[in-house]
Amino acid sequence: MAKFLTNREENYAQWYNDLVIKADLAENSAVRGCMVIKPYGYAIWENIQAGLDKMFKATGHVNAYFPLFIPKSFFSREASHVQGFAKECAVVTHYRLKMDENGKDIVVDKDAKLEEELIVRPTSETIIWNSYKNWIQSYRDLPILINQWANVVRWEMRTRLFLRTAEFLWQEGHTAHATREEAVEETKRMLNVYADFAENYMALPVIKGYKSENERFAGALDTYTIEALMQDGKALQGGTSHFLGQNFAKAFDVQFTDKTGKLDYVWATSWGVSTRMVGALIMAHSDNNGLILPPRLAPLQTVIVPIYKTTDQLEKISEKAGIIKADLEKAGISVKYDDRENYKPGYKFAEYELKGVPVRIALGPRDIENNTVEIARRDTLQKETIPDGGLASHVAGLLEDIQSNMFRKALKFRSDNTFYLDKWSEFLEIIDNQGGFIMAHWDGTAETEEKIKEETKATIRCIPFDSPEEDGKCIYSGRPSKRRVLFARSY
Amino acid sequence: MAKFLTNREENYAQWYNDLVIKADLAENSAVRGCMVIKPYGYAIWENIQAGLDKMFKATGHVNAYFPLFIPKSFFSREASHVQGFAKECAVVTHYRLKMDENGKDIVVDKDAKLEEELIVRPTSETIIWNSYKNWIQSYRDLPILINQWANVVRWEMRTRLFLRTAEFLWQEGHTAHATREEAVEETKRMLNVYADFAENYMALPVIKGYKSENERFAGALDTYTIEALMQDGKALQGGTSHFLGQNFAKAFDVQFTDKTGKLDYVWATSWGVSTRMVGALIMAHSDNNGLILPPRLAPLQTVIVPIYKTTDQLEKISEKAGIIKADLEKAGISVKYDDRENYKPGYKFAEYELKGVPVRIALGPRDIENNTVEIARRDTLQKETIPDGGLASHVAGLLEDIQSNMFRKALKFRSDNTFYLDKWSEFLEIIDNQGGFIMAHWDGTAETEEKIKEETKATIRCIPFDSPEEDGKCIYSGRPSKRRVLFARSY
Repeated sequence: MAKFLTNREENYAQWYNDLVIKADLAENSAVRGCMVIKPYGYAIWENIQAGLDKMFKATGHVNAYFPLFIPKSFFSREASHVQGFAKECAVVTHYRLKMDENGKDIVVDKDAKLEEELIVRPTSETIIWNSYKNWIQSYRDLPILINQWANVVRWEMRTRLFLRTAEFLWQEGHTAHATREEAVEETKRMLNVYADFAENYMALPVIKGYKSENERFAGALDTYTIEALMQDGKALQGGTSHFLGQNFAKAFDVQFTDKTGKLDYVWATSWGVSTRMVGALIMAHSDNNGLILPPRLAPLQTVIVPIYKTTDQLEKISEKAGIIKADLEKAGISVKYDDRENYKPGYKFAEYELKGVPVRIALGPRDIENNTVEIARRDTLQKETIPDGGLASHVAGLLEDIQSNMFRKALKFRSDNTFYLDKWSEFLEIIDNQGGFIMAHWDGTAETEEKIKEETKATIRCIPFDSPEEDGKCIYSGRPSKRRVLFARSY
Repeated sequence: MAKFLTNREENYAQWYNDLVIKADLAENSAVRGCMVIKPYGYAIWENIQAGLDKMFKATGHVNAYFPLFIPKSFFSREASHVQGFAKECAVVTHYRLKMDENGKDIVVDKDAKLEEELIVRPTSETIIWNSYKNWIQSYRDLPILINQWANVVRWEMRTRLFLRTAEFLWQEGHTAHATREEAVEETKRMLNVYADFAENYMALPVIKGYKSENERFAGALDTYTIEALMQDGKALQGGTSHFLGQNFAKAFDVQFTDKTGKLDYVWATSWGVSTRMVGALIMAHSDNNGLILPPRLAPLQTVIVPIYKTTDQLEKISEKAGIIKADLEKAGISVKYDDRENYKPGYKFAEYELKGVPVRIALGPRDIENNTVEIARRDTLQKETIPDGGLASHVAGLLEDIQSNMFRKALKFRSDNTFYLDKWSEFLEIIDNQGGFIMAHWDGTAETEEKIKEETKATIRCIPFDSPEEDGKCIYSGRPSKRRVLFARSY
């Protein structure tokens, strides 16, 4: 089955699409730009959700749910916000269908036109701040630390499974604070949560930084981002956290009485990650045999495949497999025994490689005789035959090793593909021929940023938090600059 | 705070609404018919989700996600389905907003009209069966056992928080099978899962049965339901499971090759429960002091309240409370120590009664001296002072006792309010003055069913699975009948 994958080195985009389809993660639906997330893909998303939700709750957040629809008028309240989203909104205008006059076709009932159109939420700041207005009177009502798991719709013209779809699943945190400092701190805290999650669960090293003004969220005073490098040398924005200042509080007139009795507008943040993370996971780690999933997010961590010729052999193997399975499950490792009769071991091996199952255990007659198992790891494709004593703790260790090895490998790839450049000619050459992260000086103007984008399709992914202050000259304009910023082409 | 609740016996509907608002479960939003589920209400829903999801997975189901939007043409494919939902559909007709000519208002961009309108899903049979068409060729591809957690929209004209809202959250299972028998078995299996969940988690006794033809899901050959009795004598449908026959397979042309090589249409089921369950939970158990939540679904199971005059006393109490809290958490019991200084114990007691926290522990100076605690249970409001040794196991036992006591109480209420009637005059009297479940003979015709509904607003809630065969006469028409069915007014 893996042989049906397009070669990654030949056509990365096609390889990605093949992989999503063949590994049964998702597919396009009959609705333009909307995907069906299939059970195996959804199981990865469930693991992402579970991991993040735990981290959100550990940092004091609670979940809630706000309406799918946003009255059109709410949208206009924050000027830059509406500008950012107006061009890609699904609009509900009617609330009833009926049979047409000939009684054959179902049509929209013109008499059931809404007085005010409703927008299917592309993000929920406006509907949420309209609620917060009633919840906040005094500093005692603050902070509000709410997260929502939801679907959102942005009418994208060019879509790709997981990476960019008209409807996607995400979480959106919306917090309200009494002071600017507290809101900024929250914005940073949540970006750090995202970075932790990316590195420790997804095995994906990320650069944390500020977005340039051009790339900020519509309505934010500051947007922080985590940026990861994919195997084709393009960047992928993994999650963003926005400091919204008092913009939405002013738009929705949300004021509170502070400790001194003074009225002030409330400070806000919002932050989100989406099913795009599944796309990042695939693009960052997988190979020509299929998915490589980090053990902490893999729906299935271990599979046991029997290798036999006679039913007598199968019986003994199955008995042993049952014991191993119970041992692994007791150790908290998910495991499946695949004794399907109508598929050969080679076929099963290829299937589990395609699906990215981290550890494969093969059991043959000789293993039964010798009290051994053959164990293969998906990340390196290495196999070894080992004694079966203490197998559960061996597999647990192996899963941890795979998790950290995947991170190290991705980190090495990124450092091999990060370039500190000072000449424009080098910038052009690297961007065109090699891709990767380019750290270069920038004069800080939107004009230069725009020119670079026009000429190279590279954008400023972020101004890294840890980019040291150094004197330099803008790689494009030659004007003075105080620090390097991160350029790349991106998804 | 509890005193702000309308008296349940005086105005049940207002009592319910007050309770939802005051206990901070949900509120109406700016969007007609759509509610905001607040954190405390959402935490109950999260516990419902977790419990059900585990049961779905234990019965072999996996989760997936299908698009929010359904092309209008899909809707028309199954004739009775479209009839059932056409009158309450939110319709997306455009995909862009723009500034109007004067540059002041944001308006729908007429140039961005969709070729085919999209319906915001009221349920997902059509979009899902359109996908299954591509997934199913042979009996080897069956069964498909998929569940989806999602939001759906039905444009209800008269809405009530949790019970009936234009948008609601739910799960919808959609399964595909090779034989009629297997599909029927699945339909029953999932109804049993719902009944188990209602009784064991929600402490809510339910009657399992068949819907009459009139009350079936639009597109189903058979609908099974669980019906519960609320404290005002009305029935609430808690969950339904539908045997869809081959209707959707035929509408979407989903055929498979069976083991003998013959082509046949696939057999289907669907089943769902929604945030309505939260409404049922409130209505079935709560009282004039507030919510009474079953321990298995309560977001917070225990609260510790300190009672003190001096800071010295508080210090000693806090130390003890810390030990108790750690002990309870170790035993898997959720617990909060509420040492807020600006609220008096009496206020806190009333607040936790309003919020339905099952167990309250009060700690005063005398308790510290005597190594005792005062422990109060929310269901009966009984208090006792007990030695603090082995408190965790005592609380664990108490939580179990509350859970089963709530079920017993609800069961007794139901049996006290279930009437086996044979005279129409009695039917009228009971329905008008008392409410409750009426078990009566019915002649099996839609005509009689409709007449009874017109005259009494009572409907056939179900034909109970366990209603024994007995000769009788229809309570309305006097025509012969073979079994009693369940009548009630309902939500």
